[in-house]
Amino acid sequence: MKLGGSAITIKEKPFTPDIKAIKRLAEEIKHADVSPLILVHGGGSFGHPVAKKYRINEGYKDSSQVIGFSKTHQAMTVLNNLVVDSLINHDIPAVAVPPSSCMITKSGRIEGFEERPLIRMLEMGFLPVLYGDAVLDSDINFTILSGDQLVSSLAMNLDAERIIIGADVDGLYTADPKTDSSARHISHLTLTELKKLQNKVGETKVTDVTGGMPGKMRELIPAVEKGIRVIIVNAAKPNNIYKALKGEEVVGTIIERA
Amino acid sequence: MKLGGSAITIKEKPFTPDIKAIKRLAEEIKHADVSPLILVHGGGSFGHPVAKKYRINEGYKDSSQVIGFSKTHQAMTVLNNLVVDSLINHDIPAVAVPPSSCMITKSGRIEGFEERPLIRMLEMGFLPVLYGDAVLDSDINFTILSGDQLVSSLAMNLDAERIIIGADVDGLYTADPKTDSSARHISHLTLTELKKLQNKVGETKVTDVTGGMPGKMRELIPAVEKGIRVIIVNAAKPNNIYKALKGEEVVGTIIERA
Repeated sequence: MKLGGSAITIKEKPFTPDIKAIKRLAEEIKHADVSPLILVHGGGSFGHPVAKKYRINEGYKDSSQVIGFSKTHQAMTVLNNLVVDSLINHDIPAVAVPPSSCMITKSGRIEGFEERPLIRMLEMGFLPVLYGDAVLDSDINFTILSGDQLVSSLAMNLDAERIIIGADVDGLYTADPKTDSSARHISHLTLTELKKLQNKVGETKVTDVTGGMPGKMRELIPAVEKGIRVIIVNAAKPNNIYKALKGEEVVGTIIERA
Repeated sequence: MKLGGSAITIKEKPFTPDIKAIKRLAEEIKHADVSPLILVHGGGSFGHPVAKKYRINEGYKDSSQVIGFSKTHQAMTVLNNLVVDSLINHDIPAVAVPPSSCMITKSGRIEGFEERPLIRMLEMGFLPVLYGDAVLDSDINFTILSGDQLVSSLAMNLDAERIIIGADVDGLYTADPKTDSSARHISHLTLTELKKLQNKVGETKVTDVTGGMPGKMRELIPAVEKGIRVIIVNAAKPNNIYKALKGEEVVGTIIERA
């Protein structure tokens, strides 16, 4: 499961967690009691401003970025700590797993990954908590690994049954519902439809409403091709994550191979 | 370099960091400006009380320990965060590397380790910061990996030139200097002398004054055998860590192969 950064932080205010939302989501996860489960969260107002300032996603250009890498990772660690703390306070055996310490990318794509601790954690009933992170890269020295690439890659490598994406909207729309009154909610998509829709993104007919929907869709396609079902729900609305975890009916967008 | 938990926390008070000492040590590390360097720190009053309560070091016995593993790791994450924050505030590009996410032990000994991110960090001039941690174990499900095993293992795998141990005493003594007035400070030890001394520990002629000296010595022997020089200094006294990092003369115990 991926929880978008906007679902757990106050987007407009740098370094401001949405403690109330984090607590509610921890309650929903505890209540759903689903295992094995991996949680990946985004950076929201923690990771993004620092990463952007030091242009970490562009790779190493000059030595002034080095401290920026440390600051980006540290900002994510602080947010992750709040999430894991809240989960443990709800009696969920959560364990932080920073991607920067167990993964390396090659030109931005996950190249190597020490998955043994993670697999053992899942077998033992732990809830590993990963996040979009600043990571080392064998080609460009470092970069940003998105939570979306991470959740899709983990789902494929660990043969997940499904991916739940907790966004701050009800899923995909034919246009931006915030600005276009003709926007229509998409409740179900096949892989073919998703690929068509992705092309439209370039034409701005489908607007990026979750702060990175074109990227999200691109990352999700390989997982969907492998037969993993994806459901995008609004994590800002109470009980949606609970329902999605339990497999109950919920407003959202389901993406399936066929 | 290893900084004992007692050097960065208030030993007697659970979950109490010694912020002043952490800040001073960050200043000394910044001032010494030595690279490549890896920092390993202990748990002090953060990790130990929780790990002990849930008997994490004994491996998995019953399900009530699972949340204890999470709490132990989380306590260490909080302490590590304070250390890394202080280093970054001193403009040192520190990066937290939790052992639980990149290592797995077998009956308590490091079995597998994803070292690529760590090596890349060292090449890039980062200061990786690891710590004694609750880790997954392929035999006993989980255990505690000591900072001492970690620093010795890292030094051997990464061909370190030397290991600096920052303790809360001036090094090794022939007896406990705190209770025995006949105690004599040992400024230099060969491997043969170390092995002899280690046997004496069992006879309590050499007292464990750093909260785990017999264990420390046992862990250090393989590194010393490989030709890595070990120096134990008192990190609680200003400038000792600086001097040890710079290779300057400092009160302490040097352990060498010959």
